[in-house]
Amino acid sequence: MNDPRYDFRSDNTGGVAAELLTALVEAAHGTAAPYGDDAWTARMVARCSEVFERRVKAFPVSSGTGANAVALSVLANGFGSIYCHESSHIEIHEAGAPEFYTGAKLVLLKGHDYKIMASGLDSALQNAGIGETARVLPFAVSVTQPTDYGTVYTIEELSAIAAVARRYGLRLHMDGARFANALAALGCSPADMTWRSGVDILSLGATKNGAINAETVITFDDTLATELPYRMKRGGLVLSKARFVSAQIERYLADDLWLERARHANEMARRLAASLRRIPGVVIDVPVHINMVFATLPEAVILDLERRGYLFYRVGLEIRLVCRSDQSPEHLDELVASVAAAVRSAGR
Amino acid sequence: MNDPRYDFRSDNTGGVAAELLTALVEAAHGTAAPYGDDAWTARMVARCSEVFERRVKAFPVSSGTGANAVALSVLANGFGSIYCHESSHIEIHEAGAPEFYTGAKLVLLKGHDYKIMASGLDSALQNAGIGETARVLPFAVSVTQPTDYGTVYTIEELSAIAAVARRYGLRLHMDGARFANALAALGCSPADMTWRSGVDILSLGATKNGAINAETVITFDDTLATELPYRMKRGGLVLSKARFVSAQIERYLADDLWLERARHANEMARRLAASLRRIPGVVIDVPVHINMVFATLPEAVILDLERRGYLFYRVGLEIRLVCRSDQSPEHLDELVASVAAAVRSAGR
Amino acid sequence: MNDPRYDFRSDNTGGVAAELLTALVEAAHGTAAPYGDDAWTARMVARCSEVFERRVKAFPVSSGTGANAVALSVLANGFGSIYCHESSHIEIHEAGAPEFYTGAKLVLLKGHDYKIMASGLDSALQNAGIGETARVLPFAVSVTQPTDYGTVYTIEELSAIAAVARRYGLRLHMDGARFANALAALGCSPADMTWRSGVDILSLGATKNGAINAETVITFDDTLATELPYRMKRGGLVLSKARFVSAQIERYLADDLWLERARHANEMARRLAASLRRIPGVVIDVPVHINMVFATLPEAVILDLERRGYLFYRVGLEIRLVCRSDQSPEHLDELVASVAAAVRSAGR
Amino acid sequence: MNDPRYDFRSDNTGGVAAELLTALVEAAHGTAAPYGDDAWTARMVARCSEVFERRVKAFPVSSGTGANAVALSVLANGFGSIYCHESSHIEIHEAGAPEFYTGAKLVLLKGHDYKIMASGLDSALQNAGIGETARVLPFAVSVTQPTDYGTVYTIEELSAIAAVARRYGLRLHMDGARFANALAALGCSPADMTWRSGVDILSLGATKNGAINAETVITFDDTLATELPYRMKRGGLVLSKARFVSAQIERYLADDLWLERARHANEMARRLAASLRRIPGVVIDVPVHINMVFATLPEAVILDLERRGYLFYRVGLEIRLVCRSDQSPEHLDELVASVAAAVRSAGR
Repeated sequence: MNDPRYDFRSDNTGGVAAELLTALVEAAHGTAAPYGDDAWTARMVARCSEVFERRVKAFPVSSGTGANAVALSVLANGFGSIYCHESSHIEIHEAGAPEFYTGAKLVLLKGHDYKIMASGLDSALQNAGIGETARVLPFAVSVTQPTDYGTVYTIEELSAIAAVARRYGLRLHMDGARFANALAALGCSPADMTWRSGVDILSLGATKNGAINAETVITFDDTLATELPYRMKRGGLVLSKARFVSAQIERYLADDLWLERARHANEMARRLAASLRRIPGVVIDVPVHINMVFATLPEAVILDLERRGYLFYRVGLEIRLVCRSDQSPEHLDELVASVAAAVRSAGR
Repeated sequence: MNDPRYDFRSDNTGGVAAELLTALVEAAHGTAAPYGDDAWTARMVARCSEVFERRVKAFPVSSGTGANAVALSVLANGFGSIYCHESSHIEIHEAGAPEFYTGAKLVLLKGHDYKIMASGLDSALQNAGIGETARVLPFAVSVTQPTDYGTVYTIEELSAIAAVARRYGLRLHMDGARFANALAALGCSPADMTWRSGVDILSLGATKNGAINAETVITFDDTLATELPYRMKRGGLVLSKARFVSAQIERYLADDLWLERARHANEMARRLAASLRRIPGVVIDVPVHINMVFATLPEAVILDLERRGYLFYRVGLEIRLVCRSDQSPEHLDELVASVAAAVRSAGR
Repeated sequence: MNDPRYDFRSDNTGGVAAELLTALVEAAHGTAAPYGDDAWTARMVARCSEVFERRVKAFPVSSGTGANAVALSVLANGFGSIYCHESSHIEIHEAGAPEFYTGAKLVLLKGHDYKIMASGLDSALQNAGIGETARVLPFAVSVTQPTDYGTVYTIEELSAIAAVARRYGLRLHMDGARFANALAALGCSPADMTWRSGVDILSLGATKNGAINAETVITFDDTLATELPYRMKRGGLVLSKARFVSAQIERYLADDLWLERARHANEMARRLAASLRRIPGVVIDVPVHINMVFATLPEAVILDLERRGYLFYRVGLEIRLVCRSDQSPEHLDELVASVAAAVRSAGR
Repeated sequence: MNDPRYDFRSDNTGGVAAELLTALVEAAHGTAAPYGDDAWTARMVARCSEVFERRVKAFPVSSGTGANAVALSVLANGFGSIYCHESSHIEIHEAGAPEFYTGAKLVLLKGHDYKIMASGLDSALQNAGIGETARVLPFAVSVTQPTDYGTVYTIEELSAIAAVARRYGLRLHMDGARFANALAALGCSPADMTWRSGVDILSLGATKNGAINAETVITFDDTLATELPYRMKRGGLVLSKARFVSAQIERYLADDLWLERARHANEMARRLAASLRRIPGVVIDVPVHINMVFATLPEAVILDLERRGYLFYRVGLEIRLVCRSDQSPEHLDELVASVAAAVRSAGR
């Protein structure tokens, strides 16, 4: 157990939102059919349909990587390729799960602010040699919303990507591990950010916003849902007592608490970035759209922060600071003060 | 939500053991590193080592199918074959997950009481054409302990199977989704029923004995643990907040409550079988070693029971009645009375 | 190099039919586009269409296992199951290639004379739990025509199997490694034995009937041909100089020589079986429909034959004797005389 | 059939070297055990051992993609990653076969002249997060020698790459589809260019240098050969009448004809490049190490050449001209004259 005061590693290091824990505990009453044939899961699906303003199918899963991999597996057809940004979670942090589930190759695109661009996608597809059987056949595009660097696609950007995808007959997947944070940042509706923008299938994560290992795969096209339960089972992703995930997701989407938590986390990061930028020697290049700040600091400052007990991920001189949905503003102020002190001390 | 009074479908329809729910709730305090690098997981591994009387490695997973599939994946080498009983869970109820993770073929064996036999395994391996490259190369054997029909391998049977496996250079996996029930039935130690009998890797399930989607893969040979985390991640089985599974497993094995629950469930089934056998027209062929009773009943009786609201699985005229670890004896007596009444009523 | 006089191992130990060697040599003139985009392949496809009395697509491959595996891969959808006889080549002698290419599980059926039966298939599918996501979803049926034991499905049997398959929405594959022998045995047309009987996709082998590593996958439904070239390439089955296989297949089907060769081989086996049956102590249980004879002999006789230099495959006391398409009747008579002599000598 | 005079598409559009056709025809005598257990294959392996100056194992295959994919499959362990150049054949032109056979991800490196560099490999591996289970675990490096752009690694470059690979515990594969051309270019021994430089496994192609679909996988470490035949069979790559490939490979390596052919093709390309460079408006940026020339020409010139009947591959304004091992110098001179004429005509 670590001290939340010093922990800026990630939003999945945190505990559980009170209402979700309650929902989970309440699901322990009575008995229920296993593997998702239960009333909690049925209510969860209904709730998703309501929140997304259309009838959807939704499947409870306990890991985001599992959600992404199995969602992609119904888009690719056991071979071919999936286009994504070279920094995307499915490429870098899922140990090859997407390829394992799909049999497809990930084709990596570049693009500003860690986002793929419609133009880049178009150009890549033009050069994909579609029709040549020695080349992998493109089946899908995957966007991470928000990206692993905390940047958010606008509705216009998503729609443009979807238009290109559609033109080439490709399906569009959205990795929404931090879906709420993107939604809070854009201030739009869940429907706007997904199917109205052309998204066919969504991995919606709740774990990083207060849930206990609770994610859901949502299909906006019923034909994609046919094979999903079989492929989930084949991947070992079907939960014996699925109701404990479904109960959380259902509660998660039942009111605005999920968005308030995301708004708070985003606001904390915005405030953190603003404060850090005022400290000489701190450089923040990556736009701060959601709850994470990438700051470049002198080596001595980083070491000083680590000595003070701060926890964060680091690549070279760049550190990532993530604000959790229960982020205390006081702890944030302490962090800023610590950075300032470390900078002063290093400057001596 | 179903009424526990009438629910004899399975042991994964039930709720949560009090101490496990408490352990889960307590794990929500503070922050913790994600993906199993947390203190709860470390304590869970230590607890497994203590309970199994040797240093083991253990990995938290949220599904039994996932646990089996990934455990087998480090035994087979991306191809080849795995020997198991034709009625085993990995063959019938996992939608091809073992083949997906291992790249291997399951070779099906027959055997009394739904158990493979050392002699049958030996004979199958003799005829496997080992060395012929057109044949699949055997890599492993998997036993389900207890079996899906509630029968239990004796220590002698396990040891004999392990001896054959070793002779051919195969590894031995145990699917222990109801591990506690088998242990309670045999009255032996976890070590005796596993590595001392020649088991190399174990899927230990807690979900069917009171936990919330909590299983663990335990390796008795460290070399098998090297690739496991990578293969788990690739399957989407690594949990973001793994501590909520690990905390349950750790608590599960901390005292004798897990065995008491299993003993209770087993005893309820023994009692149920004894009572049903006294009712004319009820046939119970499958030995009742643990918490499940397979009873053959006249069609009219089955329909009568269903009309009364009873829930159970059925194949032809055989129904499966499973006693949960929180099985109320009163509900059991009611069930017996209902069967007797249904038989009488059908006899008129 | 072995002496054909003593070689009864298989029909793929033989040399090359004169007209096929000529066709191959002639394909070496000029240059041609690689990977099947050549004039020889186009002519081969046209020839297949002519011989099968409808427009088909056809793909040259150099191995029968490759042909089967890739043909099945467009029937299964990356998971699920394929039904076949427990003795079929795809189960026993392809080292898991069908599972590798399809991602599906082979479900094994029993049946007289090494053939699946429509009734057995129906019953298995009824019990397959179609719709339960924990069970593998059936996608296809595969028949080996003729079987590895030399028995041949009648047109009625094939049609009945196809009718059951269709009823459950499954596709039908035929493994025709010895297609010509079955055709010669039935005396029907290629169309009758395939698409008119409900076959969707065929692996047609020529190698065992005089060709050099020349097989072709033929689709009777164009939608199955869309993905085939991609899946072939992904399996490494696309040939750089495909014309050398296509030229053989085209010539193979150009006149009746292929059927004459098959008829001769079948006739040789019929004659061999008739002669052997007259020798006391020789038991021939398996019907001799094509060019192979399974004979059970005393151990001493088998050893005597081996001492005389005879080559054949053996399981227990049963030996397999295969007549090649260039089988010399004199060598056959010598073999019969040798068996008779060995029996006499063993009887002393 | 195309006219060799105008065909500069590739070196696999050509016919067959006389001595290889003879070897193939001679292998049709007598009978032989199937699937590579024949005398021709044994002699081929012995020949490889002689030519590579150490005892090797070698396996006949009929496709280069198959050879590469199955060779890589024994390096990766069913998951993980393989490092290669972003322009490599295994990435661009094999439709995902390497990923299919290996279960691994290809990680793409940049590097001058289409070659990976030891320094780039080192840096990529440093940043691969080795040990983090969310990252793919590196298993192997693959070099294409020569590259698909006709550039050749020097012995020093290969050795430096091998040293980095070894430092990280990775194995080294060489895709030698045009092995002879690289050897001819470097003037070194087969041993120098492979195992003495640190190569563990080689795909040696003969098809592009005069053979009929004949390639061989050669292992320089016997432990890599154990699984190869099983994995080949599982991929449908084992040939029924393997002797027809082995006989070609054996003859191919039996004297210096293979190198003479490669030298001739290389020399033709050198001469072609030199002549083309003298024509105004022709730009040749890619070094011409072997038998291919990449020339950038005005659109009008390209169209003019196509109108004259010339066949070649084209990307944008860059065309690839490949000299076959039987390239006629006269046809080359005609091509140069045609380009010059086309340039003049376009200039008007």
